[in-house]
Amino acid sequence: MQNFELTILGCSSATPTSTRNPSAQLLNIAERFFLIDCGEATQIQLRKFKLKFQKINHIFISHLHGDHYLGLLGLVSSMHLLGRTVDLHIYCPPELVEIIEMQFKHSHTQLRFNIVYHPHRYINNDLIFEDKKVEVRTILLNHRIPCCGFLFTEKPLLANISKEVIKKYQIPVEQIMAIKSGADFIMDDGTVVPNQEMVSHHHQPRSYAYCSDTCYDENIVASIKGVNLLYHEATFMHDMLERAKETYHSTTLQAAAIAQKAEVHQLMIGHYSARYKNLQPLLAEAQSVFKNTILAMEGETVKIVS
Amino acid sequence: MQNFELTILGCSSATPTSTRNPSAQLLNIAERFFLIDCGEATQIQLRKFKLKFQKINHIFISHLHGDHYLGLLGLVSSMHLLGRTVDLHIYCPPELVEIIEMQFKHSHTQLRFNIVYHPHRYINNDLIFEDKKVEVRTILLNHRIPCCGFLFTEKPLLANISKEVIKKYQIPVEQIMAIKSGADFIMDDGTVVPNQEMVSHHHQPRSYAYCSDTCYDENIVASIKGVNLLYHEATFMHDMLERAKETYHSTTLQAAAIAQKAEVHQLMIGHYSARYKNLQPLLAEAQSVFKNTILAMEGETVKIVS
Repeated sequence: MQNFELTILGCSSATPTSTRNPSAQLLNIAERFFLIDCGEATQIQLRKFKLKFQKINHIFISHLHGDHYLGLLGLVSSMHLLGRTVDLHIYCPPELVEIIEMQFKHSHTQLRFNIVYHPHRYINNDLIFEDKKVEVRTILLNHRIPCCGFLFTEKPLLANISKEVIKKYQIPVEQIMAIKSGADFIMDDGTVVPNQEMVSHHHQPRSYAYCSDTCYDENIVASIKGVNLLYHEATFMHDMLERAKETYHSTTLQAAAIAQKAEVHQLMIGHYSARYKNLQPLLAEAQSVFKNTILAMEGETVKIVS
Repeated sequence: MQNFELTILGCSSATPTSTRNPSAQLLNIAERFFLIDCGEATQIQLRKFKLKFQKINHIFISHLHGDHYLGLLGLVSSMHLLGRTVDLHIYCPPELVEIIEMQFKHSHTQLRFNIVYHPHRYINNDLIFEDKKVEVRTILLNHRIPCCGFLFTEKPLLANISKEVIKKYQIPVEQIMAIKSGADFIMDDGTVVPNQEMVSHHHQPRSYAYCSDTCYDENIVASIKGVNLLYHEATFMHDMLERAKETYHSTTLQAAAIAQKAEVHQLMIGHYSARYKNLQPLLAEAQSVFKNTILAMEGETVKIVS
């Protein structure tokens, strides 16, 4: 099965702590490396966890609060200094283009590679990346400033057909793709061989939804229905509900309620307030509503399973 | 004796490594906390070394290469989020004002405190900060883009006069300040008591010069003559002299030659290229020219002595 795994680089909210960095995640789907948000010191985290950052060709920035993008310029500069030449695609709020380009202008930096900007259009379910194995769509979130989450989905794989089956029914080469795509096979004597007798199917396409930062908003449920892994911010425990509302963040119980309504397979919470030294109470509170919850923990990698 | 000590927060050049952060130093002179440069993750380093960053009221940025300022916005944001209300003074290239203010605009951030900008005028020996105990002047450096070093100097302290001496010569209160400042004392019978018989002197005012980034430039020697501690960048060992020239950086031998010509008391080298895992050869090379050389090492504090 192709790789589909998520490594957490930062799981803190706005103010980092001595043990937690601001938001950043590295998602590997079939050896495509997607960086999701890029808080301060993301390049340092990538080095610390021995992740090769020149493999990152696509960076997704949710919004323009510093804890989600302030590491971007340093990372891009290091990519340049270490000799990168291949294009780097950045999916981001439109204003980030000016922020980056102004700083390169003042430092007299001429990159040896192109940055291809894909400014957010703030449309829900906007297809912003697609290749033969993966697609990425936006999830409109509800925060103090415009903010996009991201839904990463594997494309369905064609079914398998074994050599033995091909030999048994004498299937001509030119019909194999059709059968892999779902067609039946008609033999020379007119006998119809049903598709399901010939093929074996891969796993269901898997999906990962990144929802940070956002207040509790049931409007996102339709977009993330049934995903294999949902990352939903849980900045606060539920006793801080009023603070969560004021700041357009979510509580553990709210993240769990969204996971439950969306019937996701697994929930990961993160974006923890610096006030929480111990994260176990946050986990326990979320699990009281949605059992299959895990904590985002820096340096840990989670496999997304179907 | 009042405090005069320097803590290294980052000593790497442009690309940080898994063990070295980009440039940042915290200088404490008589409980004034001066932050000198602010590379990415400086706020994380301050936390790691348990330094209280709300005590920092003055930040000095040498130039607009990212490894010298990219941590500033995150630090200022955290100061804000943690409730700061007192003014923050930033001494910096003029373009940094636009870089910071644009980002606060896009993140809809309204600080609860004032940032007072002091844009560099790029005049050598420009007095940019002064209070009753300390003054700070610019040192024009020679780099690819406009760059200022900084010279921090204690102000001379008034001499001490003991109670016993005051009693012995029956010195009236109103004459004490004059004597502390160097005056002799004339007794009622006309006898002149020479100043040196009455007072004891404090140490000579101490000084610290920060010179990074710069190529080898003897023009700075006059500005840093006889300082107690000189920090001079030594990005490369001397076999990389050509690379140093191309990039407007210095080698270990060049830093040592400047220290020697300026007759400083002690030299600290830093801003090491990421290519050097072991720093001892850099130290040995610098010491071959200037014996009293030390390495900048993160988390270490050096007392500046007279």
